[in-house]
Amino acid sequence: MPNIEQVEARVAIQGQDGSYHDKVGRYYFGSRYKPIYNATFREVFKDVDNGQATHGIVAIENSLYGSIAQVYDLFQKFSNIVITGETYLNIHHALIGLPNTSLADISEIHSHPVALAQCEEFMHSQLPEVSKIPGSDTASSLALIRKLGKRSSAAIASPEAADKYGLQILQTNIEDNPENYTRFLTIEPKKRAQFNMNADKSSLVIHRLSDDKNELKAGTLHNALGCFALQAIGLTKIESRPIIGRAWRYNFYLDCSASETDRRMQSALHDLRTLGAEFKVLGSYEQGQTIA
Amino acid sequence: MPNIEQVEARVAIQGQDGSYHDKVGRYYFGSRYKPIYNATFREVFKDVDNGQATHGIVAIENSLYGSIAQVYDLFQKFSNIVITGETYLNIHHALIGLPNTSLADISEIHSHPVALAQCEEFMHSQLPEVSKIPGSDTASSLALIRKLGKRSSAAIASPEAADKYGLQILQTNIEDNPENYTRFLTIEPKKRAQFNMNADKSSLVIHRLSDDKNELKAGTLHNALGCFALQAIGLTKIESRPIIGRAWRYNFYLDCSASETDRRMQSALHDLRTLGAEFKVLGSYEQGQTIA
Repeated sequence: MPNIEQVEARVAIQGQDGSYHDKVGRYYFGSRYKPIYNATFREVFKDVDNGQATHGIVAIENSLYGSIAQVYDLFQKFSNIVITGETYLNIHHALIGLPNTSLADISEIHSHPVALAQCEEFMHSQLPEVSKIPGSDTASSLALIRKLGKRSSAAIASPEAADKYGLQILQTNIEDNPENYTRFLTIEPKKRAQFNMNADKSSLVIHRLSDDKNELKAGTLHNALGCFALQAIGLTKIESRPIIGRAWRYNFYLDCSASETDRRMQSALHDLRTLGAEFKVLGSYEQGQTIA
Repeated sequence: MPNIEQVEARVAIQGQDGSYHDKVGRYYFGSRYKPIYNATFREVFKDVDNGQATHGIVAIENSLYGSIAQVYDLFQKFSNIVITGETYLNIHHALIGLPNTSLADISEIHSHPVALAQCEEFMHSQLPEVSKIPGSDTASSLALIRKLGKRSSAAIASPEAADKYGLQILQTNIEDNPENYTRFLTIEPKKRAQFNMNADKSSLVIHRLSDDKNELKAGTLHNALGCFALQAIGLTKIESRPIIGRAWRYNFYLDCSASETDRRMQSALHDLRTLGAEFKVLGSYEQGQTIA
């Protein structure tokens, strides 16, 4: 797609210069990447919805933390936004501070709450007395350390981001578990999204399995999943989220290993409709690359 | 069970006097209830595991917020703890402050982050300028308001708790959505748990569906759920949680509408084992009451 490559991509992300979202944006869009920094996921969806941005990048799940429920719910609120790509990032956290800081100087560590949680064992063993101070993203914690200008304050963030804020990496790979991956989705307004001929995955949400009662009746979910099993379509993820205002009713989010245009997928969706299920395809896209 | 009724129940809960957990404990155990207040869910599991407490009460999901992932994960860490009961609480939040406070006096509102999120619209429309300050539970926010002693500070908590802290209810039912229910589980050490003859529900976790690959192979989840569908056992909940250290592999938590001793359930579990699935029953219990 050489001519598309030329077009500037105005990409809304959660976080700022040097955040993990920013790293994924640079990788995914290359030289087309023009970031629009936002404080919240909701603002990212808003920017994409109102055309301020041409694309958005949002984290959807982390292999240790689990799903990011808020992002699932935003797909309900912004129904004209579709998924057009995915990227996996192997997360490596670094402890970052002012130049010439030693571990013994540090009395407080700033970062995103999830990053703090993922380095719990490191802090417990190396810095048991330290105060952990949650912030809105990893990169803004670096900006804060720069501004505070005290050796007693450090932050947890991506090692590549240290330079951008004139800070120093004090220790690398401080995450408790190296199998720490985050999956990011690329999102676009439905009306502008171009179909990717290499798409081999789809995401959909099932609002109603077939009945309308306060229970997953015997077999309803089994029957719904059977539509995909019959076509030998693998499921890479299933997630349930409560439907707001209807206690104990759930939306089911499925990721399937076939594009929406795949004939097997069309059969599966036809069968699902025949069961009385109500659902919406959130997008078809190519299985994402993993970046380190 | 008259003689059991006499025995004191030392019940570990997350939160303190007047918290929602405390309300559920008082209801569930009646006059047997002797609360042990803890700051975290992990401490509740620990108290039950080491015999400090005879029981624990833990919230597992909220109809608006969704599942409490941390509690699901604690069932993995504390494998000798089983579920023996459940209770549903219809959550009504109140705005609580010092006597003679009016809404116009308030500049900051303290509460548990989930309670703050559930009253977002109320605060946005009535108190748009207010600072929202997260605390560890609703009741401790009341204790803090009492201690601060300023009319400018209020808290969101259960209306019944206001009196305990010498505070006044400023406004009731401030939750954005009245369909706000939390489901609580009663937990016990496996070796002390007595089987409840009225049990009609079970919770289980499936660690392995049948294969060992980086994907839910076509049909594996469908086949597993088929074991329950075949016996006409309803599923009231399905939840997936990442397995720590094994990227993109999930534990599936199922709630089923049959006791472990039910012959249909025994057939279903037999079939599930035959598929090559690995699973663990977390407990059988009686469908919970809903309290207002």
